[in-house]
This record gives sequence, structure tokens and C-alpha cells, in this order.
Amino acid sequence: MKLYDYTMAPNPRRVRIFIAEKGLDIENIAVDLGAKAQMEDAYRAKNPELLVPALELDDGTIIGESMAICRYLEEVHPEPPLLGRTAIEKATVEMWQRRMEMNGLAAVAEAFRNTVPGFAGRAIAGPHNYDQIPDLAARGLLRIEHFFNDLNNRLAASPFVAGEHYSVADITALVAVDFAKVAKKRPDESLTALSAWREKVSARPSAKA
Amino acid sequence: MKLYDYTMAPNPRRVRIFIAEKGLDIENIAVDLGAKAQMEDAYRAKNPELLVPALELDDGTIIGESMAICRYLEEVHPEPPLLGRTAIEKATVEMWQRRMEMNGLAAVAEAFRNTVPGFAGRAIAGPHNYDQIPDLAARGLLRIEHFFNDLNNRLAASPFVAGEHYSVADITALVAVDFAKVAKKRPDESLTALSAWREKVSARPSAKA
Repeated sequence: MKLYDYTMAPNPRRVRIFIAEKGLDIENIAVDLGAKAQMEDAYRAKNPELLVPALELDDGTIIGESMAICRYLEEVHPEPPLLGRTAIEKATVEMWQRRMEMNGLAAVAEAFRNTVPGFAGRAIAGPHNYDQIPDLAARGLLRIEHFFNDLNNRLAASPFVAGEHYSVADITALVAVDFAKVAKKRPDESLTALSAWREKVSARPSAKA
Repeated sequence: MKLYDYTMAPNPRRVRIFIAEKGLDIENIAVDLGAKAQMEDAYRAKNPELLVPALELDDGTIIGESMAICRYLEEVHPEPPLLGRTAIEKATVEMWQRRMEMNGLAAVAEAFRNTVPGFAGRAIAGPHNYDQIPDLAARGLLRIEHFFNDLNNRLAASPFVAGEHYSVADITALVAVDFAKVAKKRPDESLTALSAWREKVSARPSAKA
């Protein structure tokens, strides 16, 4: 297996943390998004969606989309489980993972990609070009505030995002909270449950991935 | 089990089709989004995210988010499999399902919720209020065109969205294509692979759900 990766982007980090939690050693291929290497023919032939991360299996199959990669790795390396154990837990992890993604990661991406000059005409990653929308950047900043508050409320009631166990929902949440710094947003110190959880999950060796 | 549902909304339809494909009989509770019933205390106590669909289990657990509900149902009623059989298939279904959701359903929602007067101040479903952004509606319309074209290209190469078998990726794609009519968008007749697939999956009894 090979992971097509870019250190500074948030979605590849989700997968790197997942791999570290599983204790796996997967060959890493850097795709320099800064130099637009994902647009070049070599990568386009691998993943026409022009996104990283992507996982290439030994038979040549390409799996794109972070959660699809995590799903594959969970299937072939079930321990430790990061997508839930029982049916209820699996559904609950999926529910919370999605909320972290839509309300957290997507909000930061809205704020970031719609303002930074380097993403002019490229407000959405992928094969199509879309103009930046300043009002969408402003909405993203507001959504990040709501995300921090809602996450704090959740963590005041639960040790981990999806319940009693560390899961991929914590991974997505941590990546979103950390990534918010690109939009110059940090959780307020008054959000003590969020701060305590962030310290706890950041102390896991996987967080360095 | 009880499914909190609203007939006219696209996400509940995804789950209804999934349930029909599984041949399950689940009690249906209508939540009248037209009358803002999801904002009332009774539903807020069930699902503070104020979204439908939601699945209530017999022990009172609430599962929100369409794909989390499908995950639960697949776990407890594995046949027929709609989320893939092998590890590669599961990952491939998840990858395509997500593309259909982000590039299809989300695009239609952007176009629709940012223009219709009834969604003024409510451009994103859920507990927070966001203003409509006209430029985002325009971008949504453009994204729908790209979605139709990309889906047609995929279906020219594959009998179903995720490969050889009907899966939840077809469900999401069909709901997105059908729902696009609220944004006054229909696939062009020149997209023959999309048209043939749409006719095929629409002929399944589940499509009436």
C-alpha cells in the first residue's frame, strides 16, 4: 500500500493519525500541493478527483476520500477499532464523525479557501474551478465559533466525541480544531471541556502524525 | 424502531429507499418541517441538531445523519448488502457515496436554500441560523452541471455508481439527481449513460419511497 499525502493539508492528517493509531507502516508518497503536483498527469492518472489523500492498494486500486481510506484500513486491520465496536457504536461514531467534518473541517475550509490569494479561482479542491466568495468566508468564521461551542458542550457530557472510546470522530475533531488556526481562529479559554479534551488527545503519539 | 421523517426532504428519502431495499418495516413518524415542527421542544429533545431523518432505537438511542442510520441498519440487517461486501468494495462504496453527497446533494442544497424565500436566514439546516448568500446559490447551479457531467462519465464506465452492484451510492445519486428539480436543473438528454442508469434505478420499487 502507498498513501499519497501532503503534510500541511488537514485531510491527509486525518488519515495519518488513523494509521498511527492502528500502528501501521504504510509507504508515504508526497504530492506537493504547493507546487500543484496534484494537477499533473502522473497524479491525475491515479486520482482524477485531484485530491489527497489517496490510498493505492497493491493491486493498483485507488481509494480516495479520507473516510473511505479509514474504512478500508479498519476492515483489514480491525484492531484497535476506531469506527466503533457494536452496531450502535458504529452508527454513533459515524454520526459524530460526520458532524465534526461538516460543522468543523468544512467551516474552516470555507473560511480559508475563500480568502487566501493562493486559492483564487480554486475555492473548492478538485477537478473544477470555483471563484472565491467573500460572504462564504465570513460565514465560515461564524460557523467555526458555533463548532467550538457545540464541541465544548458535547465534551462537557462525554469523555470522547462519540462516547466512551477514542474514535475517528476525535481524529476529525482534533484536525478541525488545529486547522482552524489557518483562519486565525482558536477556541476561547472559557471552553474548558474542549481544552481538556484537546490536551488529552494531543498527548497521544498519533497526534504528531 | 421509529424513523423521524419528512416526505419532501431529500435526506429522509435516502433512508426510506435504503429501508425499502432492505425490505424492512419501520414505524414512520412525520416531522412537518413545513410547519417548523423540528424546532419545537418535542423534537428538539429527541434530536438537538433539529435535523431529519433520525432513527430512534427501542432503547431510546437516537441516531442522526442519514449515513449513520444506514450504517446501523446494515449492521443489524446485513442482507442485501448496500454498503459493500469485501473491504475494497466497502471502501469504494464509501468513496462514491461521499462524492454523490458532496458534489450532488450538497450542490443542490446550496442552490436551493440560498434562493428560496422560505429559507431566508436558514440557509443551513440545523440549530444555527445563517443568511442566504446569492453567490453561493449561483455556484450551486454550476456545481450541479458538473455533477451531472461527472456522473454521466462514471456511468459510461460502470453499471452502478460504485461498480458492479447497486449500493447506497446509487441511492444518494438518484436522490440528488431527482432533487435537482427544486433548483430547476435536469440532466441534459445528451447525458445518455446517466439517463439509462436513472431509468434503471428508478424502476426499482424502492425508488417510490
